Amino acid sequence: MTITTLDLNCDMGESYGAWRMGDDAAVLPLVSSANIACGFHGGDPGTMRQTVALALQHGVALGAHPSLPDLAGFGRRVMQLSPQEAYDAVVYQIGALAGVAASQGARLHHVKAHGALYNMAARDPALARAICAAVRDVDPGLMLYGLAGSAWIEQGHAAGLRVAQEVFADRSYQDDGSLTARHQPGAMITDPAQAVAQVLQMVREGSVTSVSGKTVRLQADTLCIHGDQPGAADFARAIRQALQTAGIAVRAAA
Amino acid sequence: MTITTLDLNCDMGESYGAWRMGDDAAVLPLVSSANIACGFHGGDPGTMRQTVALALQHGVALGAHPSLPDLAGFGRRVMQLSPQEAYDAVVYQIGALAGVAASQGARLHHVKAHGALYNMAARDPALARAICAAVRDVDPGLMLYGLAGSAWIEQGHAAGLRVAQEVFADRSYQDDGSLTARHQPGAMITDPAQAVAQVLQMVREGSVTSVSGKTVRLQADTLCIHGDQPGAADFARAIRQALQTAGIAVRAAA
Amino acid sequence: MTITTLDLNCDMGESYGAWRMGDDAAVLPLVSSANIACGFHGGDPGTMRQTVALALQHGVALGAHPSLPDLAGFGRRVMQLSPQEAYDAVVYQIGALAGVAASQGARLHHVKAHGALYNMAARDPALARAICAAVRDVDPGLMLYGLAGSAWIEQGHAAGLRVAQEVFADRSYQDDGSLTARHQPGAMITDPAQAVAQVLQMVREGSVTSVSGKTVRLQADTLCIHGDQPGAADFARAIRQALQTAGIAVRAAA
Amino acid sequence: MTITTLDLNCDMGESYGAWRMGDDAAVLPLVSSANIACGFHGGDPGTMRQTVALALQHGVALGAHPSLPDLAGFGRRVMQLSPQEAYDAVVYQIGALAGVAASQGARLHHVKAHGALYNMAARDPALARAICAAVRDVDPGLMLYGLAGSAWIEQGHAAGLRVAQEVFADRSYQDDGSLTARHQPGAMITDPAQAVAQVLQMVREGSVTSVSGKTVRLQADTLCIHGDQPGAADFARAIRQALQTAGIAVRAAA
Repeated sequence: MTITTLDLNCDMGESYGAWRMGDDAAVLPLVSSANIACGFHGGDPGTMRQTVALALQHGVALGAHPSLPDLAGFGRRVMQLSPQEAYDAVVYQIGALAGVAASQGARLHHVKAHGALYNMAARDPALARAICAAVRDVDPGLMLYGLAGSAWIEQGHAAGLRVAQEVFADRSYQDDGSLTARHQPGAMITDPAQAVAQVLQMVREGSVTSVSGKTVRLQADTLCIHGDQPGAADFARAIRQALQTAGIAVRAAA
Repeated sequence: MTITTLDLNCDMGESYGAWRMGDDAAVLPLVSSANIACGFHGGDPGTMRQTVALALQHGVALGAHPSLPDLAGFGRRVMQLSPQEAYDAVVYQIGALAGVAASQGARLHHVKAHGALYNMAARDPALARAICAAVRDVDPGLMLYGLAGSAWIEQGHAAGLRVAQEVFADRSYQDDGSLTARHQPGAMITDPAQAVAQVLQMVREGSVTSVSGKTVRLQADTLCIHGDQPGAADFARAIRQALQTAGIAVRAAA
Repeated sequence: MTITTLDLNCDMGESYGAWRMGDDAAVLPLVSSANIACGFHGGDPGTMRQTVALALQHGVALGAHPSLPDLAGFGRRVMQLSPQEAYDAVVYQIGALAGVAASQGARLHHVKAHGALYNMAARDPALARAICAAVRDVDPGLMLYGLAGSAWIEQGHAAGLRVAQEVFADRSYQDDGSLTARHQPGAMITDPAQAVAQVLQMVREGSVTSVSGKTVRLQADTLCIHGDQPGAADFARAIRQALQTAGIAVRAAA
Repeated sequence: MTITTLDLNCDMGESYGAWRMGDDAAVLPLVSSANIACGFHGGDPGTMRQTVALALQHGVALGAHPSLPDLAGFGRRVMQLSPQEAYDAVVYQIGALAGVAASQGARLHHVKAHGALYNMAARDPALARAICAAVRDVDPGLMLYGLAGSAWIEQGHAAGLRVAQEVFADRSYQDDGSLTARHQPGAMITDPAQAVAQVLQMVREGSVTSVSGKTVRLQADTLCIHGDQPGAADFARAIRQALQTAGIAVRAAA
């Protein structure tokens, strides 16, 4: 069966107290699901309330975006939490955002880990397993978003969760389906046309062409839109336009 | 109708990271409801998990114990949060603990604010209203615990919540039903027999004898047991014994 | 003797982690002293290093800008710290920034409290006394910046500190020399010409005209430039120009 | 030349807010230098003031005990800070404690990193170099305490600092002079007589007998006393007694 939908997800609500980050109001109308910061790397309780309200206005699916406990490092620094510590931190953060959603009559749709936690668990099955257990234990109806082909996918399925495989338009891929590390040449795809072409191939053909030219199988359920970069809204618009032209609907993963 | 039950509640789970506080394991078997710290004044995610598990083992009702955001001050320092900020902080904390409870297949029973937040809202209807709205908006089935006769009770009822009026065995009362301020002489009742007598009068007669000797009407639904004081377990045992002798059942407020 | 100098001070280094605030690089060349955040309301250690370096490049005097411990509230929410707690918090923050300055071969010049702490101590002699004692105990050579005519000035002198009285160009004054509360009509002076005129009167005549038209004595040693507002740099340039034309040198308080 | 002195150092001031840790008052009279927590893993500003005062009463040398920024994890979890981030964090923490010391008319004597930061830098020359630079840049007169034979020692010397090599009484050593990992059998020396014998060999002969029976060269300037373990004071007394009997003076490293 040909896949005819794609989810566009974006990190949201990463302001904190008096500090602003990103332009959520500009990006939200362009995506189908929002990963909302839960207070550990960004997102104080008031920001969480406002972000949930904004997402609901735009009919965007609500997701928790739990992080390592590292506000000063924005959740981007590797911390060696035990699987139990990661489980506990994720349960707490999902619960907090679920409370905010409930206070507005809404429910959470998915969970996508943030920053270093996302990257660590993609390579560490024990960590991914603990976080997937946390998601399932809080609410087995939550969908898990994880890097396509990584430990997230395997562990999410093993936990009995519905899983959305995440792909990137602006990153190149290796022969094993992993992302090219950022510091290597050719890691970032800066040509919009090439990025769009990569996305269309992912959705239509279920594959990506690696940096060495190899065709690599990969499932594309949700595409990551980076909201905190200049031109994010323009890029999201270009992707939406290309998907529409290709007859692919933008819709939250299901 | 004669009241024949009384709830005994106690603050729990106020350890943080490497630091211990209280002797939850000793006190939990003696109380009927636990107010569990939610991370803002104590209670990290791991401590919350352990405390919920312990409470469930003992059949003790789970309550959220939200605080001002003041870890270094243990939530005891007055902070002038706006009603909206208080609302947001309470929604977040209830949600976080509800997530922990859900991960263990359980639900929250009640909410009792901590420290300065409890005291401030007892005297400030706008603050109490905001917090009661937070409780109701997250889950209208949650019961509110608040100081007997204070703004908590009025605002809890106005929000449509079930309300449990909280009384104290070891504090003396003024003619208007308020607690004698701690720094005033006679504020604390240190004689166990007198404390027990005060509780029995509260439950059986719905009144307390003020420091001036006046009989003051007051509804006693739940009695606060201070878990972090030396002798807390002994005191709780004495109260339980006296209640049993008097034919009063210890049971979570309902 | 006619005063022929005025210090222009500005809050600086209030970014935190991944979040930016203000445009320090634009404002620093225009002021003579910088109040640098010390980590309690903004200003992580890396931001402190960068801000000190930038200030030293521009020959701007280094000041500590200690705050209440309230990162989420940006130090703007009243918290009831005891004088001892305020003393301890201020000693810690001055020390931290002094360490950063020392690592760049520099010393601190002054201390100006931030936000709610500044406002609270202006009206509370016991709190002002504790903070002035903290400044003196860490380094009696530090100058104290405080609201002209407030408890800061009296307590700073009593502690044996050199004191700079702070005035505002964009705020109106009451008959008793206090600032008109922000929520009252006429509190803010939005006409640049009127703001400049007020500053010139303060410096040349040692007085300000209150909202009721009364001439109120007041000593103007340092003028507060708000760096985080749009047009801050333009406003600072207009003030500098007016001072230059009037023959008044911009120079750190001494 | 025979070494006839040994420093006994102990971590101190690791309480935080309402939470207590260790029994500083019992251990301080038994040691010659104190490593005082600086707020990142424990030790709020008030605790720092009290700990400095107590150390001064007992004539114990004051040292900063900087940590990774991880209060919830007590600084024991590995975090991948860049060398620049570590430099900044250490400058900040030394400065803060130096401010507290200055407010009591005292100066810092040394710096010993805490927990994961200590362990990470022992094996990572770039990290050790950054931290040693931070120590030197704040105050080149500060002494560096680091694990005997580790990257700390080499980098401390390279930075031009005076260095004290730290040894352990209750840990066994490998053939390369490193500590046996805690999870391995024989890592801990629980027999007091054996611990004392190991210390005496270290001080008198400049060597330790490894788990395989090999004699390994090692310089013992300062011995770590663990203050937060039951029996810590008894153990410290036994060590002091043995050193006295052997004619070795307990004295801060110099």
